[in-house]
Amino acid sequence: MMTTQSIADFLEELASATPTPGGGGAAALMGAMGAGLIAMVAQVTVGKKGQDTQFPEMERQIGEADALRREFTTMISADAAAFDGLMSAFKLPKDSVEAIDRRAAIIQQGYQAATEVPLSCIRACLRGLALARRSAEQGHRNVLSDSGVAVHALLAALRSAILNVQINVPAIKDQAFVDAALNEVRAAEEEAGASAGMTLAVVMARLS
Amino acid sequence: MMTTQSIADFLEELASATPTPGGGGAAALMGAMGAGLIAMVAQVTVGKKGQDTQFPEMERQIGEADALRREFTTMISADAAAFDGLMSAFKLPKDSVEAIDRRAAIIQQGYQAATEVPLSCIRACLRGLALARRSAEQGHRNVLSDSGVAVHALLAALRSAILNVQINVPAIKDQAFVDAALNEVRAAEEEAGASAGMTLAVVMARLS
Repeated sequence: MMTTQSIADFLEELASATPTPGGGGAAALMGAMGAGLIAMVAQVTVGKKGQDTQFPEMERQIGEADALRREFTTMISADAAAFDGLMSAFKLPKDSVEAIDRRAAIIQQGYQAATEVPLSCIRACLRGLALARRSAEQGHRNVLSDSGVAVHALLAALRSAILNVQINVPAIKDQAFVDAALNEVRAAEEEAGASAGMTLAVVMARLS
Repeated sequence: MMTTQSIADFLEELASATPTPGGGGAAALMGAMGAGLIAMVAQVTVGKKGQDTQFPEMERQIGEADALRREFTTMISADAAAFDGLMSAFKLPKDSVEAIDRRAAIIQQGYQAATEVPLSCIRACLRGLALARRSAEQGHRNVLSDSGVAVHALLAALRSAILNVQINVPAIKDQAFVDAALNEVRAAEEEAGASAGMTLAVVMARLS
């Protein structure tokens, strides 16, 4: 499991010529940091006096953010596994017509699997951005910048995951899969931009 | 040193009520991932046939990206140290007029130190974004999305660091320091937005 690695070792592998971890793992880790910061804001808010009426909502935010962080953390390994699966498919034998066809089909499955991980990341980021809005509106003012950092991390994770979808789809022959993925990406980009913009406006209004 | 921690433990502490690591550490780690991905793109490009004319430039990119990653990695601990220093200052005695004045002065130094770390992060992000431009233009097409992810990570790191400056400055009484910090932030935000926009346009043009 990649998340038992030290941060320094993860960064070292990210920087190396080995393809995993790569942009997909980085996107998932940015998402996990966004979720982690939302939980922290709620934890700090619960710990402050005078926020008592918000306790149930803050407890809900902690629960949702912790679950989301676990999802993102799992994606760091899932992204590497999907990519490694695709690389293995390319190494399958091409010594008969049947083997060539079989290899091509497994490569296609591999590209789709490697595209499903960033699509899951995009969906988790949208949920994270909705949660960040509640965090920025209701979290303690002392940690308001952390709600804002969560927005930047989640938006960067989402936009990174979109690039990871876009680099894979040209290789995918199932046009219905490609169309569905690209439509989802377009809708997600629009929703995320609007959501992040509104939350950052809340952060700036409460900061000033 | 925080970067010897496992990713899972770092995320757990980020999500906890303890103030460090917080948004500042997350920003620095996003910057480190951006730098790491730029090095990876150059490493992969060097490893491919037919890119021979780019070897010296790719070797330069690897050297610059590795140095930048080390800078960002150091900031993860520096941010926590600056914040902990500020918290210690608040705990200083207030049992005489001299003690109160001394405490107030040390708190002011603490706020400035806690603002210097995100300012350093902003400067490193601008250098990272300039490097990402070269990465997107000259890196191998197979890892083009990784240059794009580097841009998103560096831009998110920069905007997060800006929030960390903005939440500190209202407490700082040295108006010359505040004005200089806010002017630097405004200029950096503009430069970063333009730089990231141009590089992402290069990525999209080469992807299509």
